[in-house]
Amino acid sequence: MDRHIYFDHAAATPLLPEVVDAMLPYLHEHFGNPSSLHAWGDAPREALAVARAQVAGLVGAARPEEVIFTSCGTEANNMAIKGLAMAQQARGKHIVISAIEHFSVLYSVRTLEKRGFTATLVPVDKYGLVDPQAVADAIQPDTILVSIMHANGEVGTIQPLKEIVQLAKERRVPVHTDAVTTAGTIPVDVMDLGVDALTLAGDSFYGPKGAAALWVKRGTRIIPLLDGGIQEGGRRSGTENVPAIVGMGVAAEIAKAKMPERIAQATAVRDALLNRLPAAIPHTIVTGHPTQRVPDIASFCIEFIEGEGMLMLLSSKGIGVSSGSACTSRALKGSHVLEAMGVPAEIAQGSMLFGIGIDNTLVDVDAVIEALPPIVERLRQMSPLYDKYLKSQKGG
Amino acid sequence: MDRHIYFDHAAATPLLPEVVDAMLPYLHEHFGNPSSLHAWGDAPREALAVARAQVAGLVGAARPEEVIFTSCGTEANNMAIKGLAMAQQARGKHIVISAIEHFSVLYSVRTLEKRGFTATLVPVDKYGLVDPQAVADAIQPDTILVSIMHANGEVGTIQPLKEIVQLAKERRVPVHTDAVTTAGTIPVDVMDLGVDALTLAGDSFYGPKGAAALWVKRGTRIIPLLDGGIQEGGRRSGTENVPAIVGMGVAAEIAKAKMPERIAQATAVRDALLNRLPAAIPHTIVTGHPTQRVPDIASFCIEFIEGEGMLMLLSSKGIGVSSGSACTSRALKGSHVLEAMGVPAEIAQGSMLFGIGIDNTLVDVDAVIEALPPIVERLRQMSPLYDKYLKSQKGG
Repeated sequence: MDRHIYFDHAAATPLLPEVVDAMLPYLHEHFGNPSSLHAWGDAPREALAVARAQVAGLVGAARPEEVIFTSCGTEANNMAIKGLAMAQQARGKHIVISAIEHFSVLYSVRTLEKRGFTATLVPVDKYGLVDPQAVADAIQPDTILVSIMHANGEVGTIQPLKEIVQLAKERRVPVHTDAVTTAGTIPVDVMDLGVDALTLAGDSFYGPKGAAALWVKRGTRIIPLLDGGIQEGGRRSGTENVPAIVGMGVAAEIAKAKMPERIAQATAVRDALLNRLPAAIPHTIVTGHPTQRVPDIASFCIEFIEGEGMLMLLSSKGIGVSSGSACTSRALKGSHVLEAMGVPAEIAQGSMLFGIGIDNTLVDVDAVIEALPPIVERLRQMSPLYDKYLKSQKGG
Repeated sequence: MDRHIYFDHAAATPLLPEVVDAMLPYLHEHFGNPSSLHAWGDAPREALAVARAQVAGLVGAARPEEVIFTSCGTEANNMAIKGLAMAQQARGKHIVISAIEHFSVLYSVRTLEKRGFTATLVPVDKYGLVDPQAVADAIQPDTILVSIMHANGEVGTIQPLKEIVQLAKERRVPVHTDAVTTAGTIPVDVMDLGVDALTLAGDSFYGPKGAAALWVKRGTRIIPLLDGGIQEGGRRSGTENVPAIVGMGVAAEIAKAKMPERIAQATAVRDALLNRLPAAIPHTIVTGHPTQRVPDIASFCIEFIEGEGMLMLLSSKGIGVSSGSACTSRALKGSHVLEAMGVPAEIAQGSMLFGIGIDNTLVDVDAVIEALPPIVERLRQMSPLYDKYLKSQKGG
């Protein structure tokens, strides 16, 4: 098989040609430091301002200066959790998150727990949905931060964030959301959602690696994660990665402009996968919510197989998919997301994640539907669990 | 004046063409996530391994896996100070640094002070030199970290780091050094220096923004600054900025190979500036050590002028220089480095920093020596201090 089909856009997106083109001048003539007062600082500094406005525009932020550039989504999440919690610790030390947050949120909370904070992890239902009332119930008098992701990157479930924010606001608790999975993909409006802080990452919407952002509503106190210079209004020190930030800005503008058509195209591919894969492969379960899900993630658990083997065999056929999040794939650990959704461990190990990109088509789905069944069959023939299952069926 | 002369390589270096060429494939076809198990992860992952070995090679590190990639020197310094101190806090909470550390070290220490740590800032002499014995004397039974920069980025003074390390080691205190100013410019060997951790940044040796590294000796405990995934051996989470890291690796390899010739060329330009500028402009003081200084920094204080005005007028003549570090230039604050060296505030405000690059020549020095005196004259005519000085001379 000669074709290469990339279906792992949740792990990395290719850069748009327009994005690379916009970056190149900042890798060449406009290499200057944006903090420099001489002419070499002008173009980089102006480019940062343009990118800041573009990123603000993507998420409906009222003021570009509310956007803090960071090096990756993980840094933005670390800054949000640690920075917002540390800034509020005089009022209390309790944090509420969901059980299916990205590890950068989850382990930031763990670090704070070592510093005397406490946390409540709100459970999710079998679709990966957080119940807003459960968040409200978890809020204590000393709760100083709620962080609930906008959508989950492994199963695609979109959370009822607006309701969660309303209930938290009634209890005067600020809310951060990790919107890495949604910003640039579906409409995200910080004013409409009502959140106080929001994480987004350029490399999830066809921008480059090395640029992400934390939007923080004006007036919200936050302790910097990186101390030092005066960059980003003193909130994030370090020389700005100008080319990557410029690329993210352009990607944000294009993502906003093309969002309706991208959503329509991704939804068609997603729905084809969600419908055809379980039909083609017995004992396949769709994970995530049936309707409340992002258009560009189709996720499954294929019973009686081991996901890593499946994705490597698919890779040898020129098809790139993922088994869970890339952030943890090399750890070969079970997904905490699927576990929280109540998926038994032996089923969760057959998890499969399609991150649908702007170039994926229904022809790609055809190729998957053709390539996958023999791979699954081959893996199942090696599976003691499948053998046991078949015997139980015969016996029954 | 049509020529453009860039003399601010301490703030930013242009990228070498070889560096950009090496980066481009990772902005195009090799966009994958290094953590991905499928084929799209292979090239990025292998590229990280190559870059890690290149960076390790630049500083004489025994093992590439001791190199932790970060997004900038500021992040590496924050990680070093906070991560090493937090890892050792059961043994004590006292830190020793010099008074002229970069703000990313200085303010990281300030942040730790808010968490119950204490710090001693060792003074420097009029050349910006730290006395090793003063470091030794500052070490207390509860001292758990010494951090002294290898060379200062504003005045170029190289510290007697090896002696400092020896004295600290005798007292069983680990030593970190901020080598952003030296790594890639002069020989830096972590084994020879004897340090436990070292910061370097790719954009100070013709690599791109967005990639730096913290080298940490094997066996040295460090608490991560960014929690989350499994990248960098669990010590620095977040999707790796592959293109920038690749660029830094290539820049490191070239820096090592070309170091002798680069040093010779920079030294010639530096010495021309150090000799000719004070001769051309009365009341000009060379700052930094006369001999113990990096080859690519020439620094001065020009009395009776204000540095920002001077650099802006020079910029209008097509010449880019700096007045202190770019990290603080927009804060328009006096230099803490010059203050620690005992330079009076009214003289320090006329500070001037030439960061010499690989393309600078003696012809560039001619241009500066031609352009600068009338600018200084013009600024001095507006200076009440100069007026007062002239009157005192007439009176005397």
